[in-house]
Amino acid sequence: MRYELYYWPSIQGRGEFVRLALEDAGADYVDIARLPDRGGKGMPAMMNFLKNESVACPPFAPPFLKAGKQVIAQTANILLFLGPRLGLVPRSEASRLWAHQLQLTIADWLTEVHDAHHPIAGALYYEEQKREAKRRAADFTAGRLPKFLGYFEQVIARNPGRSGCLAGRGITYVDLSLFQMIAGLRYAFPRTMARLEPKYPRLVALHGRVSARPRIAAYLASRRRIAFNQSGIFRHYPELDA
Amino acid sequence: MRYELYYWPSIQGRGEFVRLALEDAGADYVDIARLPDRGGKGMPAMMNFLKNESVACPPFAPPFLKAGKQVIAQTANILLFLGPRLGLVPRSEASRLWAHQLQLTIADWLTEVHDAHHPIAGALYYEEQKREAKRRAADFTAGRLPKFLGYFEQVIARNPGRSGCLAGRGITYVDLSLFQMIAGLRYAFPRTMARLEPKYPRLVALHGRVSARPRIAAYLASRRRIAFNQSGIFRHYPELDA
Repeated sequence: MRYELYYWPSIQGRGEFVRLALEDAGADYVDIARLPDRGGKGMPAMMNFLKNESVACPPFAPPFLKAGKQVIAQTANILLFLGPRLGLVPRSEASRLWAHQLQLTIADWLTEVHDAHHPIAGALYYEEQKREAKRRAADFTAGRLPKFLGYFEQVIARNPGRSGCLAGRGITYVDLSLFQMIAGLRYAFPRTMARLEPKYPRLVALHGRVSARPRIAAYLASRRRIAFNQSGIFRHYPELDA
Repeated sequence: MRYELYYWPSIQGRGEFVRLALEDAGADYVDIARLPDRGGKGMPAMMNFLKNESVACPPFAPPFLKAGKQVIAQTANILLFLGPRLGLVPRSEASRLWAHQLQLTIADWLTEVHDAHHPIAGALYYEEQKREAKRRAADFTAGRLPKFLGYFEQVIARNPGRSGCLAGRGITYVDLSLFQMIAGLRYAFPRTMARLEPKYPRLVALHGRVSARPRIAAYLASRRRIAFNQSGIFRHYPELDA
């Protein structure tokens, strides 16, 4: 099965959580919007699909994944679908629901990361909501961020698998996503993270362990890994990093 | 199976999406935090569970559902679990993923409804972020709300089942959630909704159809249905309703 991933080509964004799973599994996939426009690929292919009124199950927004005739959107839903197929989640229904629950909590967390620099409207520039962003980011770094970090630290600590992972005895797609959260937060809030990280040794260790996985390490060193930048979800504005 | 739902007892909030599914199916359930404290029920039961450090799979926040020994959190995840058990979603994996994808888009929409009155911090009062709320609500009512309404109107229009529902040939849990969105938006933004609704006849019709289902009608008329109020996710502030 060759998977087709559709996502904005110049940012990591939500697509990155899917890319990390596909890369870690060594899956056969193409990142459609990053290909040249010729041959029905590139951004036009993604935009044409989104505008196509004959699509019966339209995505609300990228990312979406084509797997044969199936089209699946919503990042956590894509990972729910891919998890068992890529061997990145335990088999039982209870385990899959637990991993998905954690992924949905990461999705909520990611929205809060985004809204820290865009608290008023995604359609406005940061500069148009900078004052509000300072207030929201102050609450995020002082309250919400430690709450999320503390939660996931506890999840690892309580995991009956005692694996240092979030769910079960080995790495799941949720661990890959947690890696991405830590990496992004270090880029966006370096001072805050330097201060907070000593309190969350299990998260730091998990980040390191994921980044050392051979396929992930190769991916991170490759040109397929888009660099963090100021158009993505994780953005570094020094004035928001208390 | 007697399900135990845990959610804040004085608001509809996210718990309501689960209640509607349980009620429509005539499921056997108890709304734990709304029971008297005696006998290990009520709010203390919920708070004790959340604080219990021996819980291996802790919820980040309510709502959560106990089904035998399983504990499931995240509203959309609870509905993913309940859907097939309550007969509120088609059987195929593709259909279940599609319904879940729609539910996750409703979850994103609901977060934006909440943040329209709380754009800076959930920990602050509305009055402490009223100025920012006016800006965010203006963007929400002018841009994001029509975008979500238009999307779900299209989903019904394109449904190959031609059922007037969102997914497949009959009512699913996603239709019940869509009903709740329309009901809540009418409470929170009556002027905006009066202006917008004529453009979305399929959503209006679906809301009416869900509200007329016998078990839903009985539920809405019962004391089990908490009234909309100014502590919930849907709040009516006339100054935010352009």
